[in-house]
Amino acid sequence: MDDLMTSFREGDRRALARVITRVEAESEVGRAYIRELYPQTGRAHVVGITGNAGAGKSTLTAALTAELRRRGKTVAIVAVDPSSPFTQGAVLGDRIRMREHSLDPGVYIRSMASRDATGGLAPALDDVVCVLDAFGFDLVFVETTGVGQAEVEISRTVQTTVLANGPGNGDDIQALKAGVIEIADILVVTKADQPGADQLVSHLNGLLSLSSATDRLPPLLKTSVPTGEGVSELVDAINSHLAELEASDGLREARNRSTRQQVLALARAIVVRRVGAAANEAEVARLVHEVVARRLDPHTAASKLAELVLG
Amino acid sequence: MDDLMTSFREGDRRALARVITRVEAESEVGRAYIRELYPQTGRAHVVGITGNAGAGKSTLTAALTAELRRRGKTVAIVAVDPSSPFTQGAVLGDRIRMREHSLDPGVYIRSMASRDATGGLAPALDDVVCVLDAFGFDLVFVETTGVGQAEVEISRTVQTTVLANGPGNGDDIQALKAGVIEIADILVVTKADQPGADQLVSHLNGLLSLSSATDRLPPLLKTSVPTGEGVSELVDAINSHLAELEASDGLREARNRSTRQQVLALARAIVVRRVGAAANEAEVARLVHEVVARRLDPHTAASKLAELVLG
Repeated sequence: MDDLMTSFREGDRRALARVITRVEAESEVGRAYIRELYPQTGRAHVVGITGNAGAGKSTLTAALTAELRRRGKTVAIVAVDPSSPFTQGAVLGDRIRMREHSLDPGVYIRSMASRDATGGLAPALDDVVCVLDAFGFDLVFVETTGVGQAEVEISRTVQTTVLANGPGNGDDIQALKAGVIEIADILVVTKADQPGADQLVSHLNGLLSLSSATDRLPPLLKTSVPTGEGVSELVDAINSHLAELEASDGLREARNRSTRQQVLALARAIVVRRVGAAANEAEVARLVHEVVARRLDPHTAASKLAELVLG
Repeated sequence: MDDLMTSFREGDRRALARVITRVEAESEVGRAYIRELYPQTGRAHVVGITGNAGAGKSTLTAALTAELRRRGKTVAIVAVDPSSPFTQGAVLGDRIRMREHSLDPGVYIRSMASRDATGGLAPALDDVVCVLDAFGFDLVFVETTGVGQAEVEISRTVQTTVLANGPGNGDDIQALKAGVIEIADILVVTKADQPGADQLVSHLNGLLSLSSATDRLPPLLKTSVPTGEGVSELVDAINSHLAELEASDGLREARNRSTRQQVLALARAIVVRRVGAAANEAEVARLVHEVVARRLDPHTAASKLAELVLG
């Protein structure tokens, strides 16, 4: 562990990859690395890039990365891919588009499988971001696919959420209506060079005017990666959002909130594991037997099991 | 409570409705009713009716109910409706189609909101089914919308799962591929009088031939409510499935498995609630503060909180 940490601190990318792999495994060793690295975190700006499939998120992230590199910033990208076998092709295609950055030592790209087919976030995502932050990247992009539970979760983990929308998909708008727009710090209409982009901008402006958020409406930008339109402006908007958070008490509040959620979620996972632990198996079997025999009801059985676990 | 229980045991439907309402509220009072009624349960045949929106599940359930009434059986229907406001119209329409049964004392219909927009099951569903079982219904239908997490969950709660498929929706087949077919005890192609029904039967037969389940392939039936085709046969198939379970050790195994899952889930909910309980708030705030200040890492903080809860 000491050797690996030494290489890591010297900026060795193979050491970085190995630490991430161990952290992803959610093992005791991985947690020891987090314990070691945590004091060096909290410096990176963590930015979520989210939106429906087909919105061009990977292409946009690659363009943002190129612009940030021009400005001398280092960038890490965590692509949270759904585990579903159906979309592996698309994901591979996206990764290929990122190839331009693959030889740049100032860029690091890592894919992570999401927890399950329903698109929840991988439990180790916070830890992977923590490792990239400790390694010293200025900016960490977390790119997720789909607009759903994972996107609402991600908005609690990152400091800035960019919601990307591509023209020509009516379903996207349906999903946006269901409250996802509330999580966006910055709204982007991608593929501004394609038909329907201006209509989508009008539509989103309409939705924004109906938004219940009275304090701050997210800025709405148009980008086109082929023409370069709006990419530099989006980097400016991302930086401005962090500056806004720092100027108000927003950053401290956001860190408090996300830390609280992370600690509670990890603690819940520990106690939940204890309920089904092997040590309790005899008692679980006995209680289930009593319930099946109708000598005990399920709630009373659950209370007895919980009491056993809670001590 | 004693008066209400007396009326309930006398078969008073208003008492039934009031007990269900209390049980749905997941209160201590509701749990007391379950404790009281649980010894009288385990007699109803609980049947899940699931499948995509547009498959005609409510219409099918109404037709099955009419056939069961003809055979002298009493029937309760729990319709688990998504909480999403987008589908309320469809749900209301479905309920109206059930109106033919609304004056029949041998039929009871109850809607329940599902847990959330993602379509998970309501936590109180097991309890509501328990109350209907104790009231003495011969058969309890649990009708859910969508093919996803809720349907996989439901297959663990019911004894027989009927998976309904309507012709003319390619998306349904996509979803079926993703393992949902594995949960079906009986497969039904609805709207047999409409174009595409025979193609869908061929397609499903093809999927079944690829199924990994080697022990028992679900029977595949065609139904048409307007012509009456297949409805009586489907009631026979539902009865046969229960008889099969009873003849093998399947029913006892299924009850053990579902009871185990219910007791573990309830116990997990109790310990999870304890993690965020008000009594721990001072310690949670202190730990979060330490993590934000980088004097503690999130995993160590979570372990400390879990230790406090586990005693």
